[in-house]
Parts: sequence; structure tokens; C-alpha cells
Amino acid sequence: MSLQNLNGLMLPAIEMELKRILSYLEGPRTQVFHDMLAYHMGWKGEGSGKEATGKRIRPMLVLLTYAASYTPTTKTEADAEVWERALPVAACFELIHNFSLVHDDIQDSSDLRRGRLTVWKKWGMPQAINVGDAMFILAHIALLETKDRFPPEKVLHAGSIINEACLALSSGQFMDISYEKRNNLVIEDYWSMIGGKTAALLSACTKVGAVLGGADEPSQESYRSFGHYLGLAFQVQDDYLGIWGDSAQTGKSTESDLVAGKKSLPILYGLAKNGAFARRWAEGPIQANEVGFLSEQLAAEGVKLFTQETSDQLTDLAIQSLRSADPQGEAGEALFELAQILLSRKA
Amino acid sequence: MSLQNLNGLMLPAIEMELKRILSYLEGPRTQVFHDMLAYHMGWKGEGSGKEATGKRIRPMLVLLTYAASYTPTTKTEADAEVWERALPVAACFELIHNFSLVHDDIQDSSDLRRGRLTVWKKWGMPQAINVGDAMFILAHIALLETKDRFPPEKVLHAGSIINEACLALSSGQFMDISYEKRNNLVIEDYWSMIGGKTAALLSACTKVGAVLGGADEPSQESYRSFGHYLGLAFQVQDDYLGIWGDSAQTGKSTESDLVAGKKSLPILYGLAKNGAFARRWAEGPIQANEVGFLSEQLAAEGVKLFTQETSDQLTDLAIQSLRSADPQGEAGEALFELAQILLSRKA
Repeated sequence: MSLQNLNGLMLPAIEMELKRILSYLEGPRTQVFHDMLAYHMGWKGEGSGKEATGKRIRPMLVLLTYAASYTPTTKTEADAEVWERALPVAACFELIHNFSLVHDDIQDSSDLRRGRLTVWKKWGMPQAINVGDAMFILAHIALLETKDRFPPEKVLHAGSIINEACLALSSGQFMDISYEKRNNLVIEDYWSMIGGKTAALLSACTKVGAVLGGADEPSQESYRSFGHYLGLAFQVQDDYLGIWGDSAQTGKSTESDLVAGKKSLPILYGLAKNGAFARRWAEGPIQANEVGFLSEQLAAEGVKLFTQETSDQLTDLAIQSLRSADPQGEAGEALFELAQILLSRKA
Repeated sequence: MSLQNLNGLMLPAIEMELKRILSYLEGPRTQVFHDMLAYHMGWKGEGSGKEATGKRIRPMLVLLTYAASYTPTTKTEADAEVWERALPVAACFELIHNFSLVHDDIQDSSDLRRGRLTVWKKWGMPQAINVGDAMFILAHIALLETKDRFPPEKVLHAGSIINEACLALSSGQFMDISYEKRNNLVIEDYWSMIGGKTAALLSACTKVGAVLGGADEPSQESYRSFGHYLGLAFQVQDDYLGIWGDSAQTGKSTESDLVAGKKSLPILYGLAKNGAFARRWAEGPIQANEVGFLSEQLAAEGVKLFTQETSDQLTDLAIQSLRSADPQGEAGEALFELAQILLSRKA
């Protein structure tokens, strides 16, 4: 209920803020450039609309942790929507996320994102690299716009957290690209990679929200930890669904991570078992018609249970961290709801 | 003399600072990633060494404008190398410049840079995109490291100037890529493009140096203006040499901008003349054996003189701006020397 209510208020405000920041690119010679970014954000061109925008999870996490850790100093302030102050930094995180998606799509040669042509597919690789770069530059512009709303030391502190997360993101991306050509990966390699690719930015969202909201250091650390485990749990669940989820199993078996050859947790764990699955994997690419059998084989080797248990443990750690952060008010309730929704996907 | 002396002190300090910042990427799983960036910087791999590092013009401009606009508050401080305080922000500019070079090389499909294989040619396009991204992230890390050395408001002010320059850089890059497919370009399109691609970052170097050095607002503006005209003059001279320079004319006529079909100032001005050159251009790509004749044709149509005069005017504006900034001491002298060297290249 709290989340639904706050979603209704925050999501439109996030879109408005993102549009305001992208408008810095508008100009007589750069309208087409602006529109490339607006296309990726889901606002312009074929297939634009609600389905195309993404869930805006990162800015929601920033606004909710900010509001949940903020202590109002006056009664009027308690009634006002204090989270509005954190909108530029919330937008900053969404822009960083989208910068990484635009470049990711080029790096992976992905033709589609959310059912629409990717930027590089539509405008070519050179422009798409530049669209990603502009997204990242706008993220930094958004961040520094908070300097009229928070003490400069806090803005700089937030900036350092964000830069560190971006460096981890790019290190994770390096690993991800390198891993494609490696056949000697172990599970520790997996944790390093998703620690950077998935968890770093989410943990920065919750930590920055808490820092700007004025949480004390132990709470900041609990919020950070919440974002970190949320990211890891989400990714492990994604890996689980990539093999045993509905769309991976029934009908679209080509969407199985087995066919894609993705170095996901269950696959690496299966390889470490050195059993029938590992022997089949060593023989070459998995075909779509083997998906049913091999996913059962993995389950028989204990990999399904291991993946599920890992996901459950990480989910518990995320919820425990959030509890010790002790988030307040409606935003605090909404954070628990958001975590539940993100961590109980079935497909 | 002043420049030679300060180059001897500053250039090694800049390299050390850059190496320190790149070392944030070192780690058990990211050593190869670190080495990709170190290769591009000219420190590692085949062909590394002095020839491969580039001239470090941007960080030199930052350190010199900083020192030339700084008023020492004590005698001891006057003797000390005050410019050392500006090293992280100097490194920030060099990293931004190199981020744009790494991505540029992918966008232009360039195989070589300073006689060595480009990053994308060596490690593939996906890794090279990520190397450029990491360069840009490290630039922001370097910027925020100045927060222990300058008041936070100044760091944020510098950050805003840098972000604005990066947005102009990326808008200029958008234009550059778009222009390749356009045949209706006018000279105003050219100025917009190089204003972003070449002048924006240089003017940010000199402005940030002046802001951190404590120059008053009129001087900050003069320094900014100096960097701006320096960039434009440098680019126009580059365009001049691209047609009438030694290597474009004698021997390597394949290196002529005429053969590359580059939308440079003389070419756009020649097209605007609507004469014999424009008619030949409209017929299709220029061949190497036409270079001698067509560069004379352009000269006969007044384009050579126009380009030279434009370059001279911009050079004058740069020097006038620097004079009104009134740079002090040895660093001030070195700035005049650096401008003279940059603006009197012959090849």
C-alpha cells in the first residue's frame, strides 16, 4: 500500500526530472542527439510508452532511502514531500544505469531492449557510444545540481560513493567480457563480476540516499548492505529463472542461459560438480532441444537446490540489513515492499 | 626558457599523478584491465615510451593557469611549488581527453594512434568501449580528490565547468559523426562542431585553473577565452596543414584531408565558393593523384588565404585574451611560450 502510494507520487516526478536534465541537450544542432537519448529512455519513437521506460528501481531506492532516513525538523516539513529534494541525485543513478545499458547493448551486440531496437541498431555503433557517454555526462550534471539543496561536503561525499560504484561497475563489465573467452572460471569469479555489475550501483543508491537523508554511520552501512544484498539476490534469482524459469523451460527454450552459454551461478556450480553436466558442457554449445534434459540433470546434481538456497540466504541478508537500518515512516514500509517484490519474481 | 624549466618539473609530476590514479584499477582480477588503460596512456606494451604518451597539453594548461593566477599568501609559499596542489584536477583533464580519444578511435575505425595499434584494434570493440568509460570514471575520481586541497564550493564549481565542457564535447562528437553523411554543411556547422570537439575542453582547462588559483571573475573569463581561441586557432591551423602542410602535399598525399573527405574549414569554404573545386567535389571521392592540383585550385579560389587569415585572427584573439588575463610569474611567461609553440606548427 505504501509503495503503491509513493510510486504514484515519485515515478512521475522522476520522469519529469529526467526529462528536465535531458533537455540540456536540446538545441538547433543537437535535437536529433537529444531524441536518441529520449528514445532509449522510452519517451520517443516507435514503441515508446510505459512498457519502454523500465522500472526506475534505482531512483526509487534513492528517494525511499532518503525519505526513510530523514528526520523532519519542523511539522510543516514532515507534511511536505521531503524526498523531492533528492530528485536530481535519483535521476543521476537512473542515467548511470542507462549509460551502462546503452554501452552493454553494443558490447553484447543485442538487437532488442524491452522489445524495441537498441540505440546502436537504430543509429549505428559510433552514435550509440556517444549516446551512452552523454547519458553519463548528464548523470554528473544531475549530481552537481544537488549543490543548491545540500551542504557541499555532502554532495562531494555522495559523488565519491557514486564514482567508486562506477569504477566497480566498469571492472565488473571488464570481467564479464573477459569471461566469455575463459573456460576455467570458478564461483569466486562470478561473485566478483556480479558484485561490480549488479550490486555496486544498487548499494550506492541506498548508501547515498542514507547519507543525504542524514542517517548515522551504522545506518548508512546497513542501507548500503541492504542495496548490496538486494543486488546479489536479484541476480542469483535471475540466474535461477534463466534455467528453471517459465520462459526458459517452456516454449522459448532458446532463451535459456544454457543455450546462451552464459556464465551464470548455476552453470558455474554445475561445472564445479564435474559430473554429467560438466562433461556435456565441455563438448560444445548446448542446443535448444537439450534444455529440458540438462536443466533436470543440473537439478539432479543438486544445483537447483543450491541456487535456490543461495538466493534465499541473500534475500534474508538483504531484509536483515534493511531491518537494522530501521527505515522510518511510509517510505520505510515501501522499502520492505519493494524488496519483497523484487525478490519474489517468478519469471 | 620558463616553459622548458616548468615542463621539466611538471611533466614528470603529471605522469606520476596519472599513474597513481590508474592504480585504482589494479587488483587480482583487473590487472589486464589496468594494463589496457596503461597501454593507451603510452606506458605499457609495444611501442610504449616518450613518443607514445602524447604532449599532455591539457594538464600543462591547468597547472600553468593555476600557478599564473595564484597569489602566494606567505614567502615560503611563493618559493614552494604551489602548482602541485592542482595535480589531481590536471590529471582529470588528461583522463577526459583520453577517454574521448579511445572512443573516437572506435567511432572512426582508426587502426593506429601515435603509430601504435588502437585499444579496440588490440582488445576488440567491447573492451575498448569499457576502457574509455573507465578513463572517464577515473577522471571524476581525480576531480573529487581535490576536495582535501580546496574549499568544497570551489571543487563543485570546477566540477560544473568540467561537466559543461564534456556535454559540449559529446555534442560536438554527435555533429562530427552526423556530418559524415551530410552534403549541405555550411561554415556555421563547422564552428559549432569544433567549438565542442576542440575548444570546449581547452577553455575548461584554463578556466578551472583560474578558478582554483583564485583569479577574479574578469580574469577567469579572460583565461577561459584564451583556452577557447587557442582551441579554435589550433584546429583551423590543423585544417590548413591537412591540405597545404608538408605531409599532405609531398609524398603522403593520401594523408590529405581532400582524400579523407574531411569536412574541414577550407573544404567547407571551398564548397561555399561554388567554383571549380565545388564542382569536382560533387562528382565523388578525391583521388591521391588529384591532391596537388586541387589544393592549388582551392588556393586560386582564395581559400588558402582565407584559412590562413582565420587562423591568424584566432591566434591574435588567443594572445590578446591571455594578455588581459595578465598571468603572473614564470608560469605566466610559460603560458605565452606554450601558446606560441602550439600556434606556429608547420607540420
